[in-house]
Amino acid sequence: MNRLITVAAAQLGPIQRAEGRDVVVARMVRLLERAHQRGANVVVFPELAFTTFFPRWYVENLDEADGWYEETLPSPATQPLFDAIRRYGLTCYLGYAEIAHEPDENGVLRKRRFNTSVVIAPSGEIVLKYRKVHLPGHKEFSTIRKVQHLEKRYFEVGNLGFPVTRAPVGGVDVNLGMLICNDRRWPESWRELGLQQVELVMLGYNTPAVNQENRGFEAPYQRQFHSQLSIQAGCYQNATFGVGVAKAGNEDGFELMGHSVIVNPQGEVMALASTWDDELIVADCNLAMCELGRSTIFNFAQHRRLEAYQRIATQTGSSAPAVWQPGQCA
Amino acid sequence: MNRLITVAAAQLGPIQRAEGRDVVVARMVRLLERAHQRGANVVVFPELAFTTFFPRWYVENLDEADGWYEETLPSPATQPLFDAIRRYGLTCYLGYAEIAHEPDENGVLRKRRFNTSVVIAPSGEIVLKYRKVHLPGHKEFSTIRKVQHLEKRYFEVGNLGFPVTRAPVGGVDVNLGMLICNDRRWPESWRELGLQQVELVMLGYNTPAVNQENRGFEAPYQRQFHSQLSIQAGCYQNATFGVGVAKAGNEDGFELMGHSVIVNPQGEVMALASTWDDELIVADCNLAMCELGRSTIFNFAQHRRLEAYQRIATQTGSSAPAVWQPGQCA
Repeated sequence: MNRLITVAAAQLGPIQRAEGRDVVVARMVRLLERAHQRGANVVVFPELAFTTFFPRWYVENLDEADGWYEETLPSPATQPLFDAIRRYGLTCYLGYAEIAHEPDENGVLRKRRFNTSVVIAPSGEIVLKYRKVHLPGHKEFSTIRKVQHLEKRYFEVGNLGFPVTRAPVGGVDVNLGMLICNDRRWPESWRELGLQQVELVMLGYNTPAVNQENRGFEAPYQRQFHSQLSIQAGCYQNATFGVGVAKAGNEDGFELMGHSVIVNPQGEVMALASTWDDELIVADCNLAMCELGRSTIFNFAQHRRLEAYQRIATQTGSSAPAVWQPGQCA
Repeated sequence: MNRLITVAAAQLGPIQRAEGRDVVVARMVRLLERAHQRGANVVVFPELAFTTFFPRWYVENLDEADGWYEETLPSPATQPLFDAIRRYGLTCYLGYAEIAHEPDENGVLRKRRFNTSVVIAPSGEIVLKYRKVHLPGHKEFSTIRKVQHLEKRYFEVGNLGFPVTRAPVGGVDVNLGMLICNDRRWPESWRELGLQQVELVMLGYNTPAVNQENRGFEAPYQRQFHSQLSIQAGCYQNATFGVGVAKAGNEDGFELMGHSVIVNPQGEVMALASTWDDELIVADCNLAMCELGRSTIFNFAQHRRLEAYQRIATQTGSSAPAVWQPGQCA
């Protein structure tokens, strides 16, 4: 039985450090309007969609950075986005910097910071929340980098796992999951979602166009290749649709790659952005396509072998292998 | 510091059911000679390299199938291959059907069958043995398939994990790991090797050119795409070189895909076979390239989060997610 939904990736062009939420939210509302015109049921925005990619800027005291975070969603500044979601009857994925006043692992109420995404229902209600698990970069100011990447400073590691929920999208019940940016490079993220029968993985990203640590081994064009490779493999190996959405372009002199993409459960690209600016790409996704992989080659119940996977869940870093000695393997 | 080895993929064309090991071994010896002429240090052969892909043929009683297995390696029939390995000073990966007389999980000595691969040193000694973990297909005769795929009948699930060892290859110490065929589609296999700092993943395959279970959703060209996508992603996400080697062509009316491939730690194709016959492809691999990913974006110790991976090692099959109820996620 066909189960058709129309999916839109709403890529955002650059947001300069000095720009306010009002400008950004107005741009996002225009993209929602355009998505409605194109017949979309669900719209995916980037990671940290309301601000510049601020982890490139160092602050000594995190409290000075509160202006980049949301304490409530919606807020007066972001309310027009929620109004548009309701007006057009859209489901929406949105990434933002979250301040949460909640107990830490020791039960002490604290002001905590996460790199967060939510799924918003057409009613404006939050359906599902995810907090980024794989924070790239570093915590302290790096004297050897030309550009900082301080996600480990600005955010705690996400503490909500990789949740999936079944919720209506344009009249079709869909198993919805989320990732954020660097999560997409980690097959563990995709598999956690796949084990919950995810059918649509929504993920936003802010990816610098040049790898600052390339050491001469990574050409700039490989940044797009690696992003797409990871999304395509994640979709194929978990029999799911995927939508990767960039914030792109030149922010205060620093370039972010674009190449937002919609991928099907065969791992094939269905739509690809071609600018580094605000751009909408749309694809019709027949969720029945998820059944093939899930019930045959990637029928997990039939083929997965937990006894062989124990390093994955018990060993964080890699360890050097034993050195072979002649006569060892008889 | 550059650490250069020359890697060869020795693709085999078809082997008919009636053909003997003498014919196949002679073809393999010619490929080793050619690899020596091309300056190779290590040569990778396919899965089940000595016989036709026999899991397509049903037998009622497995003992009737013993002729497709090796009880010893080398045997008189396969000795010429080992002689050539020693003559040319090559390291070699080889897949074969193994009969082992060893205790089962209950401690009872039995005749056991595995889909196995080994790394052979230039001395002819076995360096490392692996037994295929991800057996595709089915155990009983399928009345709905045009071609059987009886790997779950012919083999037990591998019981050696995913071993990695550090051994000399052409004067360079290399962290060597192995996969077999369907293993390459499972990111768990690659990650188990990556957690042991693998630098060269050798894998052979016999992959039917058409997915018998495609249900109209998978075109034949996607078979190659999926194989390559899985190998490229596995290499990139674990910062390793990979060599995937096919048995290819028409065996008794049934086509196997070719497209043997050598991939670098950036996930890029370095060499690709272009026939469905005996064919050698060669690439110079600088193992220093493995350092970039391993020490930056895929520095596992810095970035992996075990607490978020627990489903992977505790839940075999997938489970349906909870259905969202309005008001649930406040």
